[in-house]
Amino acid sequence: MGYAVIFMHRQFSLQPYSRHYSYSTNCFLDFVELSNDGGIEVNSQYVPKMKPILERYQKAKQDGTLLLINFVTVADYLFLLRSVTQIMKILKERAMFYLAAAVSDFFIPSQKMVQHKIQSAEGGLTLTMDQVPKFLKPMVTNWVPEGFIVSFKLETDPSLLVDKSRQALTRYGHQIVICNLLTTRKAEVTFITKDSELKISLSKEEANNGVEIESKIIPELVKRHDLWIKNTKKEQA
Amino acid sequence: MGYAVIFMHRQFSLQPYSRHYSYSTNCFLDFVELSNDGGIEVNSQYVPKMKPILERYQKAKQDGTLLLINFVTVADYLFLLRSVTQIMKILKERAMFYLAAAVSDFFIPSQKMVQHKIQSAEGGLTLTMDQVPKFLKPMVTNWVPEGFIVSFKLETDPSLLVDKSRQALTRYGHQIVICNLLTTRKAEVTFITKDSELKISLSKEEANNGVEIESKIIPELVKRHDLWIKNTKKEQA
Repeated sequence: MGYAVIFMHRQFSLQPYSRHYSYSTNCFLDFVELSNDGGIEVNSQYVPKMKPILERYQKAKQDGTLLLINFVTVADYLFLLRSVTQIMKILKERAMFYLAAAVSDFFIPSQKMVQHKIQSAEGGLTLTMDQVPKFLKPMVTNWVPEGFIVSFKLETDPSLLVDKSRQALTRYGHQIVICNLLTTRKAEVTFITKDSELKISLSKEEANNGVEIESKIIPELVKRHDLWIKNTKKEQA
Repeated sequence: MGYAVIFMHRQFSLQPYSRHYSYSTNCFLDFVELSNDGGIEVNSQYVPKMKPILERYQKAKQDGTLLLINFVTVADYLFLLRSVTQIMKILKERAMFYLAAAVSDFFIPSQKMVQHKIQSAEGGLTLTMDQVPKFLKPMVTNWVPEGFIVSFKLETDPSLLVDKSRQALTRYGHQIVICNLLTTRKAEVTFITKDSELKISLSKEEANNGVEIESKIIPELVKRHDLWIKNTKKEQA
């Protein structure tokens, strides 16, 4: 069974497939050149890498297996997430929620925002920010209680990492926290569940060859999700 | 006489030429398709618009008339600006400085930053920010006193706009403030000088046809800069 993906992302952030060609030192126009027949073509040196990406992107578009939805503010994100979960609820245990968006912990609610640009004549500025509502609790308890929910925790202090992840798991009651450290996040993550802990990392060689940690995270999650589906069905039988 | 441009920009912000294909709803991969000869080409429907942009971009690269330099933090920006002005000082009155970067008014200096991620367990967050140093005064007075310096002022409150622009002009002693309002910034700007005020705007028809206000700002600035060069030479004669 394959997956269809609803990709919620902040406006202008990196997106599947095109991410390989966004935010690069070169801009899009550096990849193309005028062709002999009056058109514009991708410079042949970039074709071998771009072709498989383009083919996979076009297949996803054609099959309708990738839906991109963008948001701007934290409030947008929360409302959108609730809507998406309500729609996905029908999938029951077959829905996986991969909550990797790095949503801010603090925000300024719109009713506390000033109407006009803040004048800087008076010197410094003191901002008071509210905590972003913890949506995982209602999500796990009410929105999609049968879903397979994966949250992420990024820390900078190694001594807090596992404890904070376990706390989140206990507090919200979902299935997995994937935690990582800011400095090593592209090479190492730890899967924390109620009764297990699995470290996944890239070898130096893999990292040097451009292997991405997600290529190890996703198969592991799919395996666990399959098990989750099987176990849920068993319970219902 | 033509211009060579040093384009200081925040990392990942829109850039000359490629801006037409960045941040769009479509991603880069939506513009291209596999061609019959095994390569990748730009879909013919996009060629007419893209071709003149690509040609101008390639000419600028070939002539070396566009230098892109990126920055991330406010501190990066200020150091970079000082370095660039020091290098451009040799151009004397022939250098124009177009200070359109929307640099934040407030920042947190690195020595006040915490080492680790801020924990959200304690509720809200109060941030105290310092004012970004006003660099226009030293720039006008010491760094490039002969240069033609254009600053920008954006406000949300129409009643403040012209007064605040005149204040800046008096305080810093440079040549022009171009001011605009957040809501109408793409259709109307006002040039403020010591003894004049000129409103430049797009007609509804121009706006609907995709004419950009910059296409009127730049020729006007070039005209005034030419006059600045001529007058400086006259004074020296």
